[in-house]
Amino acid sequence: MKYFLPLFYTIILVTTLSANNGYKLWLDYKPLDKNTVQKKYNYIKYFNADNTINDEIGANAKSLLTKHLSTMLRKKIDFNSNKSQCQIILAIDNNIANINDEGFEIKFRNKKLTIEARTTKGILYGVMRLLAMVHESKDLVNVTDSPKIQNRILNHWDNIDRTIERGYAGFSIWNWHELPDAIDPRYEDYAMANASIGINGTVLTNVNANAIVLREDYIQKTAALANVFRKYGIKVYLTARFSAPMELGKLKTADPLDPQVIAWWKNKIDEIYKVIPDFGGFLVKANSEGQPGPQDYGRIHADGANMLASALLPHKGIVMWRAFVYSHALNEDRFMQAYKEFVPLDGKFLSNVLIQVKNGPIDFQPREPVHPLFGAMPKTPLMLEFQITKEYLGQGTHLVGLANMYTEVLSTDTYAKGQGSTVAKIIDGTVHGYNTTGIAGVANIGTAFNWTGNYFGQADWYAFGRLAWNPYMHADTIFKEWVNATFVSNSTKVKNTAIQLLDESHEACVSYMTPLGLHHIMAEGHHYGPGPRVDSLQRADWTAVYYHKANENGIGFDRTASGSNALGLYNAQFSAIYNDVNACPDAFLLWYHHVPWQHKMKSGRDLWTEMITKYDDGVKTVKGMLTKWENVRGGMDEDLYKSVHDHLSIQYKEAQWWRDAGLSYFQHRSGLPYPAGIVHPPHDYKYYKNITHPYAPGLKPKW
Amino acid sequence: MKYFLPLFYTIILVTTLSANNGYKLWLDYKPLDKNTVQKKYNYIKYFNADNTINDEIGANAKSLLTKHLSTMLRKKIDFNSNKSQCQIILAIDNNIANINDEGFEIKFRNKKLTIEARTTKGILYGVMRLLAMVHESKDLVNVTDSPKIQNRILNHWDNIDRTIERGYAGFSIWNWHELPDAIDPRYEDYAMANASIGINGTVLTNVNANAIVLREDYIQKTAALANVFRKYGIKVYLTARFSAPMELGKLKTADPLDPQVIAWWKNKIDEIYKVIPDFGGFLVKANSEGQPGPQDYGRIHADGANMLASALLPHKGIVMWRAFVYSHALNEDRFMQAYKEFVPLDGKFLSNVLIQVKNGPIDFQPREPVHPLFGAMPKTPLMLEFQITKEYLGQGTHLVGLANMYTEVLSTDTYAKGQGSTVAKIIDGTVHGYNTTGIAGVANIGTAFNWTGNYFGQADWYAFGRLAWNPYMHADTIFKEWVNATFVSNSTKVKNTAIQLLDESHEACVSYMTPLGLHHIMAEGHHYGPGPRVDSLQRADWTAVYYHKANENGIGFDRTASGSNALGLYNAQFSAIYNDVNACPDAFLLWYHHVPWQHKMKSGRDLWTEMITKYDDGVKTVKGMLTKWENVRGGMDEDLYKSVHDHLSIQYKEAQWWRDAGLSYFQHRSGLPYPAGIVHPPHDYKYYKNITHPYAPGLKPKW
Repeated sequence: MKYFLPLFYTIILVTTLSANNGYKLWLDYKPLDKNTVQKKYNYIKYFNADNTINDEIGANAKSLLTKHLSTMLRKKIDFNSNKSQCQIILAIDNNIANINDEGFEIKFRNKKLTIEARTTKGILYGVMRLLAMVHESKDLVNVTDSPKIQNRILNHWDNIDRTIERGYAGFSIWNWHELPDAIDPRYEDYAMANASIGINGTVLTNVNANAIVLREDYIQKTAALANVFRKYGIKVYLTARFSAPMELGKLKTADPLDPQVIAWWKNKIDEIYKVIPDFGGFLVKANSEGQPGPQDYGRIHADGANMLASALLPHKGIVMWRAFVYSHALNEDRFMQAYKEFVPLDGKFLSNVLIQVKNGPIDFQPREPVHPLFGAMPKTPLMLEFQITKEYLGQGTHLVGLANMYTEVLSTDTYAKGQGSTVAKIIDGTVHGYNTTGIAGVANIGTAFNWTGNYFGQADWYAFGRLAWNPYMHADTIFKEWVNATFVSNSTKVKNTAIQLLDESHEACVSYMTPLGLHHIMAEGHHYGPGPRVDSLQRADWTAVYYHKANENGIGFDRTASGSNALGLYNAQFSAIYNDVNACPDAFLLWYHHVPWQHKMKSGRDLWTEMITKYDDGVKTVKGMLTKWENVRGGMDEDLYKSVHDHLSIQYKEAQWWRDAGLSYFQHRSGLPYPAGIVHPPHDYKYYKNITHPYAPGLKPKW
Repeated sequence: MKYFLPLFYTIILVTTLSANNGYKLWLDYKPLDKNTVQKKYNYIKYFNADNTINDEIGANAKSLLTKHLSTMLRKKIDFNSNKSQCQIILAIDNNIANINDEGFEIKFRNKKLTIEARTTKGILYGVMRLLAMVHESKDLVNVTDSPKIQNRILNHWDNIDRTIERGYAGFSIWNWHELPDAIDPRYEDYAMANASIGINGTVLTNVNANAIVLREDYIQKTAALANVFRKYGIKVYLTARFSAPMELGKLKTADPLDPQVIAWWKNKIDEIYKVIPDFGGFLVKANSEGQPGPQDYGRIHADGANMLASALLPHKGIVMWRAFVYSHALNEDRFMQAYKEFVPLDGKFLSNVLIQVKNGPIDFQPREPVHPLFGAMPKTPLMLEFQITKEYLGQGTHLVGLANMYTEVLSTDTYAKGQGSTVAKIIDGTVHGYNTTGIAGVANIGTAFNWTGNYFGQADWYAFGRLAWNPYMHADTIFKEWVNATFVSNSTKVKNTAIQLLDESHEACVSYMTPLGLHHIMAEGHHYGPGPRVDSLQRADWTAVYYHKANENGIGFDRTASGSNALGLYNAQFSAIYNDVNACPDAFLLWYHHVPWQHKMKSGRDLWTEMITKYDDGVKTVKGMLTKWENVRGGMDEDLYKSVHDHLSIQYKEAQWWRDAGLSYFQHRSGLPYPAGIVHPPHDYKYYKNITHPYAPGLKPKW
């Protein structure tokens, strides 16, 4: 029954079956064009691997190599024990220089390619890099590469019931109910995708934690996932609810200095390691937004973190303790609170504790100053926490290439040890010589066919992984990498358009949502859409008016010495850039200054006119993005085109909504007329105020 | 760049891309084997269609024909205006006999196939039947077929936030948040799947209704879905929350006789029809389980239903009013309440009201007597409501071929007008001459790749559709149809195994969950797993002990004249079958009788021994199902094999749990010893009592 399919039927076949749903991410390893195989890789027939490459990770590296290379090169690539006959060699060399334990060296000469590493994990990463090269039909070249940060971790804010806090791509991919018996093939695909970009850890559960995940049956479920991830060099972590000894252990207290509590955690941790020997450790959100913590018992964060850390230490587990805290007794600018709480604790944490700090001091705003803690805790390893899910950046629909935002943060100079003390250098240990380093990204992954719901959300996941590996990469390199791997078979025009959209979208989003340093002006609760009018919530610092302080005189939050003096927390060289209202870069102006509407901007325009202009620039860019995408219709699978197109249409509609709701509200506060000749909102502020979206996604569902 | 792929690479290609995820359901229209095309269909080159086949449905029928036939027959099948050159003819004939307005006639002779119908909808159904024949490489034959029930409707218990009440296949496929702008290709695939089995309506929202779906922006969202479904002959319906005039319209009352309320609904309905001219109407759950309704204002169900119906009537919309009601002031057997409430209303409803009645009087139990309302309302069209989602039948993991349960219900004789008055004949109008007829199935569909989570859940969706079209079909025919269309390219052994599993699974499920007429003994709330011990809930008739009444003397609910006399509601010929404890069929014994443990069963065993035996028979059958499936490993895509295998493993584990929790509890109540030589539970009843699953799916999520 051997038969041949001409190209026409092959296309039908593919279309009928797959309808490019994006499931394969940047890893859609299909057979290459025959000519390409002939020209570039035809000599590859066999591979050889050291006998020492035989642990779970090593065996997997070999299996991935032969499976995917065979597919792409259109013939079986076999193992051959005779090295001299092999074109690909995998070799362990414990003494290899220039790389660390997770690094690899690819050497290519005379049609012979060697991947060397100190560990099988390095081999795995090398193999995946090789597959990526072949996937794009590249010439094989030498590569020496090592990750610069040790713990490169996804954080899933996934609940046990499969809802996802701030998730916009469906349900959680963890089917807790059917685990450990049913193993969704997606678990392994998830692990492979992460390993391909160097992610080596995943926190399975929400930081707003549920103690049940530490119950015996749930530990078995977590173990089942760990068993899938292990061969990809990925460790599992859980969130530890601080009150678990009371909820699960029926103790009367969760006081971290109580001997029974200490014993409960020690036993629990030992129990976990019995079934998950390489368990990574805990991520903890304590004494923040209602979560229990050591302060409930008059203890300090270090008491809580160290109690867990000392039980994890013998197993080489770590504690990632979040710095996202702010006091219930609101007595100062929230911008400053984590700093004030944590800096005095510097040096008080055990060696396996990392403090996990959001990129900015408020909460993942479209543009935010870097957190003042970076550079301020030389004795305590600080992890950087990015959000990949776009809670404040258009959620499920807006195309916003986050790599530009990430690299802006990472390249910001803190001046902690003089010029050049960038956030990247704090995080990777260069500045303070941290012995442990880490970075976390809040995942944007769900049960959507294409994982991220918004197709271009895949680029953000990819960008996080690449920057976790190398925080010095440039955003444009990352955009190109992702586009070339993802749109591998599409035209240059398609690729260039995709790159352009990614590149211009973040600045556009900042402009149409929060220009000139506006921040925290979204709708309450679900954070979907504009909410500059939000003025009465449980806490003042959950409102928008607390942050923009717009009135008839001006707008913005004075954080100079005449105000909260949050700027004073930073190194003097840093704050000098922002202190003077006239010198402060436009992009951060309203973060630091309350500015009169008539203030003359660098453009020569007054602040009010500048704000209108900026808002509208953002909208115009999105309109341009939509047009550019419409110009590549026909250049790809129609379903893929349509999905991106529909989301861009929504983005364009919502960009106008952000602009118009913002301007009409600020106009209402300022009483200023709209200048002639430029855009003004079609409705007054009341119209926008009455728009409600009680069922916007990402929050606890309500019936 | 034309090239040929040998079979080996085609296989790799397919595997890499698709990893049989079940998305294509029974409609995976791939190119047929070349020899088959050559032998059977080679003469087909052109098709012709009457000029009158040009509305949305007609155009779609033509497009489906050419698209899928071209794929399967490996060449473009073109339209040709010269009929004599065409091998396929689509023709409208308004006077065609033997079929109704949705029926079709396929005539095949001399290599010429004609599909005739009175309407384009009939043509669509005919085209889909033709595609199904070719998909299975069948010889083309004559078919004359018409649906026997007019309204064949899926009910989605989907909430606006995308959670699904009693849903076990992920989130709702309706992405309300992104509608109407983003149109998921899945919407059309959903419509095609439904049309292929004759379903012609869908209620988008949960019967526990949310008024917001009637808000202007949500009507636009519903319209966007209606626009996709229309060309497949599928109407959309919504659930109407009875208090919507208060919640949306800010009225002070929702009294159905209040002029303002009447006007509000009329305006709302007119508003809907302006954007959805073929809107189907409303499904209403009123005065049941906390839902608002006319009784809140001292009115009767007919007042509420007729108020909506009279506003819908000019638009040809219908009201489906649910009979699933039971009084808050519990004063009698819940089995009887809907009957007592609705029978007196017979004849009081407007012509476009249907009363939607669950198949049984309690709530979708694994086996349940038919509802006493069937046959008792000759002047009011009764719709039958089946549950396709398996709330009480193993939820997301158990393989239970529901066609056997459905056909058992449909073929049950009510004796309403003498022998032969089966439920099917009530529903399709044969017995009472209803001028409107309908049937509803509560959908088991979610965002799972394969739609139903459990792969074999697709068979239940299919079965519902086929029985809605023809309620006289036999279950084994349906199983064969689904298996042959779904496992089209697999071996006969695989097919026969799949059919066997479907066929034996329902009786097995009844045995391992609720043998001998036990009912309503599941865990509270989520209904996941056994809960015979459940004895204290808000309402007595939500507990298990209310239904099984097990004590040291015996077990079962006396519904004869000496008890609640629910049996007295039925026609005498019906109740005669069950009235006598010695004659009553084993399968229904404990539905109708409180029986001493020592009661001698038809097998000769006492009741207690019989119960143990029955429970264990169920477990043994599931063990056999698992073994049979393991015997076809390798005969299909490994991911598909594994998915079904993992679920069968869970089913086997849970079947034992049901048996053991049931027996240990009843042993505890009866105090009887376990007879020697047969199975007895490994733990006592307390062990099973302490098992908790607070995050079982299908209920409102909790964090």
